[in-house]
Amino acid sequence: MPSIDGQRVVADLKRLAEFGRYKTGVHRPTYSPVDVESRQWLAERLCEAGLDTMIDGIGNVIGRSPLPGPRLLVGSHSETQPYGGWLDGSLGVIYGLELARAFAADPGCAGLGIDVVAWADEEGHYGNFLGSRSFTDALPEEEIDRTRGRDDGTPLREALARAGLAGRPRERVDPSRYIGYLEAHIEQGDTLDSTGLRIGVVEIIVGIWNYRVTLLGEQNHAGTTRMVRRRDAGVAMARLATRIHDRFPDIAGPRTVWTIGRMLLEPNAPSVIPGRAEIQVQFRDTDIDRLATLEKALLELASEADRAGPCACEIETIARSEPRPMDPRFQDEIEAAAQQHAPRMHMRLPSAAGHDAAVLSYRMPSGMMFIPSLRGISHHWSEDTKEEDIVLGAQVFADAAARILNSAR
Amino acid sequence: MPSIDGQRVVADLKRLAEFGRYKTGVHRPTYSPVDVESRQWLAERLCEAGLDTMIDGIGNVIGRSPLPGPRLLVGSHSETQPYGGWLDGSLGVIYGLELARAFAADPGCAGLGIDVVAWADEEGHYGNFLGSRSFTDALPEEEIDRTRGRDDGTPLREALARAGLAGRPRERVDPSRYIGYLEAHIEQGDTLDSTGLRIGVVEIIVGIWNYRVTLLGEQNHAGTTRMVRRRDAGVAMARLATRIHDRFPDIAGPRTVWTIGRMLLEPNAPSVIPGRAEIQVQFRDTDIDRLATLEKALLELASEADRAGPCACEIETIARSEPRPMDPRFQDEIEAAAQQHAPRMHMRLPSAAGHDAAVLSYRMPSGMMFIPSLRGISHHWSEDTKEEDIVLGAQVFADAAARILNSAR
Repeated sequence: MPSIDGQRVVADLKRLAEFGRYKTGVHRPTYSPVDVESRQWLAERLCEAGLDTMIDGIGNVIGRSPLPGPRLLVGSHSETQPYGGWLDGSLGVIYGLELARAFAADPGCAGLGIDVVAWADEEGHYGNFLGSRSFTDALPEEEIDRTRGRDDGTPLREALARAGLAGRPRERVDPSRYIGYLEAHIEQGDTLDSTGLRIGVVEIIVGIWNYRVTLLGEQNHAGTTRMVRRRDAGVAMARLATRIHDRFPDIAGPRTVWTIGRMLLEPNAPSVIPGRAEIQVQFRDTDIDRLATLEKALLELASEADRAGPCACEIETIARSEPRPMDPRFQDEIEAAAQQHAPRMHMRLPSAAGHDAAVLSYRMPSGMMFIPSLRGISHHWSEDTKEEDIVLGAQVFADAAARILNSAR
Repeated sequence: MPSIDGQRVVADLKRLAEFGRYKTGVHRPTYSPVDVESRQWLAERLCEAGLDTMIDGIGNVIGRSPLPGPRLLVGSHSETQPYGGWLDGSLGVIYGLELARAFAADPGCAGLGIDVVAWADEEGHYGNFLGSRSFTDALPEEEIDRTRGRDDGTPLREALARAGLAGRPRERVDPSRYIGYLEAHIEQGDTLDSTGLRIGVVEIIVGIWNYRVTLLGEQNHAGTTRMVRRRDAGVAMARLATRIHDRFPDIAGPRTVWTIGRMLLEPNAPSVIPGRAEIQVQFRDTDIDRLATLEKALLELASEADRAGPCACEIETIARSEPRPMDPRFQDEIEAAAQQHAPRMHMRLPSAAGHDAAVLSYRMPSGMMFIPSLRGISHHWSEDTKEEDIVLGAQVFADAAARILNSAR
């Protein structure tokens, strides 16, 4: 079995966190100068590990094993959320790098190939899972043409050009090359941390359904427009949001989550009646029937709001990802590796966050492993994990990969 | 009686609207380059009208009559709301300019003094009524030090320096110089327009009470954080806003208005549970007891929300202006002038918008006259008034000023 160098893993994670350091976390949005620098740094490390490495036209860093035998694709994404955590996607990328080095150094792993990838924009600064969707042929050129940055509206084409990626080919997967895809990640929730367990074996990745709801009223003066004449889009927005939060508990399952994370008023001035408002409603579940029930309720509430007036209410689907089960055999091998290094300190659980593994699972068997997040905090600079869990996770992950590859010899 | 030149009034309004033209309206924020240019243009026109003119350290354009007799101060503000209307404050400024010219040209007005003023920042791009408060000694230097632009946070000191106003003295009123202050304005509401009347005599300017309410929760991942663990500031914001809109109709008077025009979520991202939310609540009434009742209800709702949890709720008073009655004698003279030029086409009414006249009323008798706003629209580029009403208004306003000045001889 390959033996990982725990101190090297931690040192590489700390070095990667220097690109965009913010307090104890990292601010490294996709295609920002620090993101580009960090991808170049990663490419150099993958080269040193003996992989044929390139950065493709969407920003994916891909290191390919020159060996002829069975191969696993291993990795995660390397950009971060705004002022996000230092582990998040970086953990899975550095685990991938360490696996490539550990497998190369271990005669017992001769002929077993580890390809390593750092996907671009899993965090959605521009789109949804841009890198993994590009790699799996699920990102049309037209979508790249029309996509703009979520914060400042920069066209994606312009961001790619500024990052030096314009004109480079986008690499597409050859599924016959791989046994499958393996991704490690911090849990982000508190299931492991609150139960004191150290390894999570992901059974399924939730489906995430996202909607934009627009309320259209009439902008006017907040003093001179009498209440009876008003069509206040902000009032309509607050009432609809409240109704959603009142209705969903009745139809949600035990692990359903729903969020209105984004609300916009126009013009958003204290003395002006809002003429337009927009909210984004998102819900997640592992059960597709439950997702359909939630969608039906949301559409009904929006339609009721529209009929009731005085503001019009429009709803538009932004994205609807299916729940994606992980490969059962991969789950068994991760669990067996966990049982070896951390007996009875592991569990199977769903992933309530979306991951590139869900995208890859459409093209090849895929598996995911979690390590704990302290207090379940993520997408925040204070996100962290105990160093001993980072090191343990790398060893379990390497063994799981070796088991999967060996079983395919 | 002084005779105004209607075509000159309309031509000057159109010329002033060129500074920052946007569609059929104007975008001329206080201290922006076009605002500074427009104030220089106004100063030149006031000079030509025979007034001793200067632009003071807060941006007020002040033209003083060199005559020794009784004087009225006449004007309004000259900046606009973002993408606002072409009349709003500009109307009262150009009426003032026209009065200065008409009085100078009329032998019957010999010895009657018209001082003209274009106040700075009535619209609150930086503060509240900066110009009129500066002139009436109600704007301390410390407030200027700490005030920042509402949109981009530019320090007011920096904006003043960029506008070439740093180091200039701020002019202060000598109340003994004036019989009083007179201001003309579009109504902004639809009371005149919907009843077909042409002149409004303002009886009282509403009090405006403004609050900032902050909801403090915990920012976290929208997938991995289970519903029971969440402290979602956006949910708390929507629920509180809904409760305010449910409660206020029970305690409001017939002309009370309340508005939540501004709502902010942090970080306002679709997949992040909002950790902080902020709303601005504003209400207006002419009855100070009613304002106090509304405040009591708002404080109770905020305190209930705080006790109920899971988010903390804090409330802070931003501003609380008193309702300000206009001088009864000034009301009578405006009404008499209206009756002469537009018999039975005038009415008395409250102003539901704040005006510089409310600020001036603390230092001298003050009066206000309205002309109609088409469909009651204002603070929007489509704001407009019939040309015949603009011309009629100027003549009524000039006669009212002459009546007030003559009665003081």
